[in-house]
Amino acid sequence: MTERLARLCLAAVAEPGHPALSEALTEFDAEEVWAGLLDSDAGSGIAARARRLDPEQLVARTRETGQRFVMPGDPEWPQFLSELDHCESVHQLAGVPIGLWVRGRAELAALTNTSVAIVGSRAASAYGEHVAADLSVELSEAGWTVISGGAYGIDAAAHRGALAGRTPTVAVLAGGLDQPYPGGHRSLFERIVEKGLLVSELPPGEHPTRVRFLARNRLIAALSKGTVLVEAAARSGARNTVSWASALHRPVMAVPGSITSATSVTPHRLIREAEAVLVTGGAEVLEMVAPIKPLARGRATATRRTDSLSPEELRVFEMVPGRGSVSVGDLAVRAALPLPACLAALNRLAEEDFLRQDRNGSWRLPPREPQ
Amino acid sequence: MTERLARLCLAAVAEPGHPALSEALTEFDAEEVWAGLLDSDAGSGIAARARRLDPEQLVARTRETGQRFVMPGDPEWPQFLSELDHCESVHQLAGVPIGLWVRGRAELAALTNTSVAIVGSRAASAYGEHVAADLSVELSEAGWTVISGGAYGIDAAAHRGALAGRTPTVAVLAGGLDQPYPGGHRSLFERIVEKGLLVSELPPGEHPTRVRFLARNRLIAALSKGTVLVEAAARSGARNTVSWASALHRPVMAVPGSITSATSVTPHRLIREAEAVLVTGGAEVLEMVAPIKPLARGRATATRRTDSLSPEELRVFEMVPGRGSVSVGDLAVRAALPLPACLAALNRLAEEDFLRQDRNGSWRLPPREPQ
Repeated sequence: MTERLARLCLAAVAEPGHPALSEALTEFDAEEVWAGLLDSDAGSGIAARARRLDPEQLVARTRETGQRFVMPGDPEWPQFLSELDHCESVHQLAGVPIGLWVRGRAELAALTNTSVAIVGSRAASAYGEHVAADLSVELSEAGWTVISGGAYGIDAAAHRGALAGRTPTVAVLAGGLDQPYPGGHRSLFERIVEKGLLVSELPPGEHPTRVRFLARNRLIAALSKGTVLVEAAARSGARNTVSWASALHRPVMAVPGSITSATSVTPHRLIREAEAVLVTGGAEVLEMVAPIKPLARGRATATRRTDSLSPEELRVFEMVPGRGSVSVGDLAVRAALPLPACLAALNRLAEEDFLRQDRNGSWRLPPREPQ
Repeated sequence: MTERLARLCLAAVAEPGHPALSEALTEFDAEEVWAGLLDSDAGSGIAARARRLDPEQLVARTRETGQRFVMPGDPEWPQFLSELDHCESVHQLAGVPIGLWVRGRAELAALTNTSVAIVGSRAASAYGEHVAADLSVELSEAGWTVISGGAYGIDAAAHRGALAGRTPTVAVLAGGLDQPYPGGHRSLFERIVEKGLLVSELPPGEHPTRVRFLARNRLIAALSKGTVLVEAAARSGARNTVSWASALHRPVMAVPGSITSATSVTPHRLIREAEAVLVTGGAEVLEMVAPIKPLARGRATATRRTDSLSPEELRVFEMVPGRGSVSVGDLAVRAALPLPACLAALNRLAEEDFLRQDRNGSWRLPPREPQ
């Protein structure tokens, strides 16, 4: 069994948002983890699901329903999903997905690299749907990908708006991509697939559950550079996506509305409590998610060399003392990164000559060059 | 000539918002200043106006039009107007008023002691007028005085709402109180006078000018404990009242609305730039202007911030008045401490932000923070 097939099988039996398997994969090969699961004699749960799974059938069904399986290491895998690894849990859910089922012509990493989540109530007002669609057209025209769920209300309005623009849209669903939910959005999903993507953490055939919706919300937040809440009543699931965006330290934005509208209660509360920034249009959203451009305009010469580093690489780099050297193990501890991630970051940092390795294997800054 | 008559005359010839005369009155008696003005042989300006003024006629006209003249030291004079003394100028205007013409049955100090300004566009939307009226009813029912101007739109809606509640309302006008402006609000003003107050810095007979409106805005902000902006387009005079409230370190609040409404552009911008706190109802307004009550209710048994202070520090802290500032010398006397001990205590109190120092070296409480 190949590593890819093992990971596909693991992703198919794991319940989204429970990071145990995903964490095991940072230490062991997928084949080992899968073999371990099959060896277990538990009568129910994940081990039982693993024994019942027919890998060949899963591969066939993935292919037959027009899907592909994307996993860490694939060129299409969005690097920044790994930030879920260190992220606080929300409603007891957490973790980097083991892999994703994807359907559509676009490339996931390319589309999500400049993307904004637009979320909100299913029971949206006409105002909310209008605003979501307008915002999406603007962002899409500006070259930004709109990411949302597949629900009625704000989700659908966001996709419709983006479909009118020039950039494909991404819908992240809480069930298998061959099980369109809600059924009334079958044709909307087909239109999304033509240029954009459907994405799910669940294998073909699976149906959404309440917990799967919550786990799905973490993907919407994690796949986008920032989240805009358009409308949500006092108790709304859309609030959950916002919590994920906050936990991931991504910008949270909210659109105000009439104070007499029940569906603006949550956006107003978030703004009032400084958990979200008030936005009234696409330009203000882009100010938040693409702050580099206005900055660069302001001080054209001020780009730093470290701007090219990933957050993990930057964290490792910053843990290296100005004088003396430090071992890999120490660095991993200081940067609070797993050893493999730390090694990967060091590799890149050495390639770009941010760091050099001693004869004894420790890491230090290169000698300063004369100015 | 009495001090009171001299001050009445000075107030009648001074142009509001030009603090020269008001500052002279901190050093000299009103009679001296008035005599000095009459002695000047300037052919125009304030001296010429002073020579033309007939004091007896002014007194008669004030009385005949149902007005009274209220000045510093009077029981009815709101103490906290003196904060205008140290306040940064806005649009080159500044200063504590020399006195105020007041019409109505209520007492100015009593009414303004628990008061909120509600301001906004003349060209308000139906939504804005609805919101202003609702907010005013709520505040008025809660025992808070609503303060506003006399214009069409938000001002009028605020007064009408407050008139439906149980607390009288205060209208601050930019011309003489016998010259109702706009004329269409004559009957509204008469209803306000029945239980509440009309207030002006200008003597009977005077008409509003653009500068007088700007100077009037400083009084609306200075007479109230906080200012709520309900609606204002991108360029609106109501923005000016907000600037005064900010300069006075009083809470600034703004009501959101539809992002497609031109009259919500300024509230949204203020909220977005953290110059105003978003409010959606009376309770949220009262949280900002009367933060002590909800705090006390919220954590009855909680430790107080002052628990960390030494007895000496606490004594100094407790001698600083709730409003206005006090010199180190005065504090040492009041706290019955030697000067070095007082200075040491002040140092610690400043470090912990219990107290702040004025530009002129006096000590005051920091502006209240939103809860």
